[in-house]
Amino acid sequence: MSNIEQKMHPFDAATKLTEESGIYQGHTSEHYANMLGPFGGITAATLLKAVIDHPECQGEPISLTINYAAAISDGAFNIKANPTRTNRATQHWYIELYQNEKIFVTGTAVFANRRETWTATEAHFPNVPNAEKIPSIPTIDDLPAWVKSYDIKIIEGAPLAFTHPDKDEIDNSVTTQWIQDEPKRQIDFLSLTSMCDAFFPRIYVRRNQLVPIGTVSLTIYFHTDAKTLKENDDKHLLGQARANQFQNGFFDQTGEMWTENGKLIATTSQFVYYRK
Amino acid sequence: MSNIEQKMHPFDAATKLTEESGIYQGHTSEHYANMLGPFGGITAATLLKAVIDHPECQGEPISLTINYAAAISDGAFNIKANPTRTNRATQHWYIELYQNEKIFVTGTAVFANRRETWTATEAHFPNVPNAEKIPSIPTIDDLPAWVKSYDIKIIEGAPLAFTHPDKDEIDNSVTTQWIQDEPKRQIDFLSLTSMCDAFFPRIYVRRNQLVPIGTVSLTIYFHTDAKTLKENDDKHLLGQARANQFQNGFFDQTGEMWTENGKLIATTSQFVYYRK
Repeated sequence: MSNIEQKMHPFDAATKLTEESGIYQGHTSEHYANMLGPFGGITAATLLKAVIDHPECQGEPISLTINYAAAISDGAFNIKANPTRTNRATQHWYIELYQNEKIFVTGTAVFANRRETWTATEAHFPNVPNAEKIPSIPTIDDLPAWVKSYDIKIIEGAPLAFTHPDKDEIDNSVTTQWIQDEPKRQIDFLSLTSMCDAFFPRIYVRRNQLVPIGTVSLTIYFHTDAKTLKENDDKHLLGQARANQFQNGFFDQTGEMWTENGKLIATTSQFVYYRK
Repeated sequence: MSNIEQKMHPFDAATKLTEESGIYQGHTSEHYANMLGPFGGITAATLLKAVIDHPECQGEPISLTINYAAAISDGAFNIKANPTRTNRATQHWYIELYQNEKIFVTGTAVFANRRETWTATEAHFPNVPNAEKIPSIPTIDDLPAWVKSYDIKIIEGAPLAFTHPDKDEIDNSVTTQWIQDEPKRQIDFLSLTSMCDAFFPRIYVRRNQLVPIGTVSLTIYFHTDAKTLKENDDKHLLGQARANQFQNGFFDQTGEMWTENGKLIATTSQFVYYRK
């Protein structure tokens, strides 16, 4: 690790890319390791970073879909980001992450230049205590490393499988949590992307046992701009997530991400494989 | 149009592809025309069809994301479907739709072989009258052609912009509707895909005016299998959709699709551009 990387925030070091002949090179980070390969949120942020770093990139992120095709191995990887169509107001991208010439992750992204319009929010900011009133989850040793790279304060819906393994299943998997980078970091599109995936799997919340899981596809819609994100500085975001259904090997998750003062800045969904 | 196509259901004719050297050729259908180019649902179904028709395709659809990069012109188009990664249990795809060598639509899909597992539904089937008790929306002339290719029965959330253009804005855009192909057709993954996009734009429901809109990205998670779809035969599906936020040029929609007897078979989201 270089001296510069040592001084960088671990999130910036984890999503750092270097470019050569149009191919971006990155490296997995021990700070964002999951049980098998890196945390999906950091991978999604890194694919988005390849678009943002690209010299042809126009506008700000609008939507992002990341498909996890295989578990990335710890170590180096390459990313190709290709602008598939550039319009006056929107730009479309296709992104692939490779290891050893094989595709491990694919993604599509839409970027745009936003304009002021009629605006309205229908979703309701959850009625929750302030972040400082909620205890942070303990960073116990058997949790994967990425959890320790966040300060997570769960208001409702802590994973039953961790917290009450002796309890029966519960009838819903709604989680509401405050989240912040640990150490603190100014929020931006990259860290927001990663935090959209930082809910514990719905099935761990719902059931009294851990089962093998893996996200197959993650989608994020950005309802904000860089200026609004900057205003939130490094304060906690509020996330809420739920499942609609667990059915023969796959469950969904939908969620919303809010600033501390009640602005809806992202909505997200994912589909997750589970075994048994 | 050939004699065979005349005997086909219009949906099958609209999504029909022929293959040459690995490239699929299709043609827009007057039955699924929208205000500008084809209805997004039929386009999504046609991209999924290219994967299903592909000789290397394994399993059934699990997730699908379609990005609408430019308005397709009426006429012929080409589709390339590329298996990006084939695992034992899952297969990932990247799909592109071309006209005149330019990309108009991109998509990614995940297919899988499902297995029986622990299963639970958290979403609640809406408490609604049976389809036969709800009147179908009139197929008035100024509606785009695709609307007439469906029997749509709106229980709540008809487009305010059409129905009460003199009324003030309302405070939510929830729509609950029964939907069926017109003429009737056995439901399958392709028609389910198209029906996921067959809600009128949330902004038409919410506001008392029509504004230019266009979906930029559509995601569908399939919670079902071909056998379950077959059991629903050609009966109406129940769809429910809502927006979380309309913000500086983009609004989201999340929705659920249910069989007549209350099975959740798809969840869907989309992000939509709007002007002013």
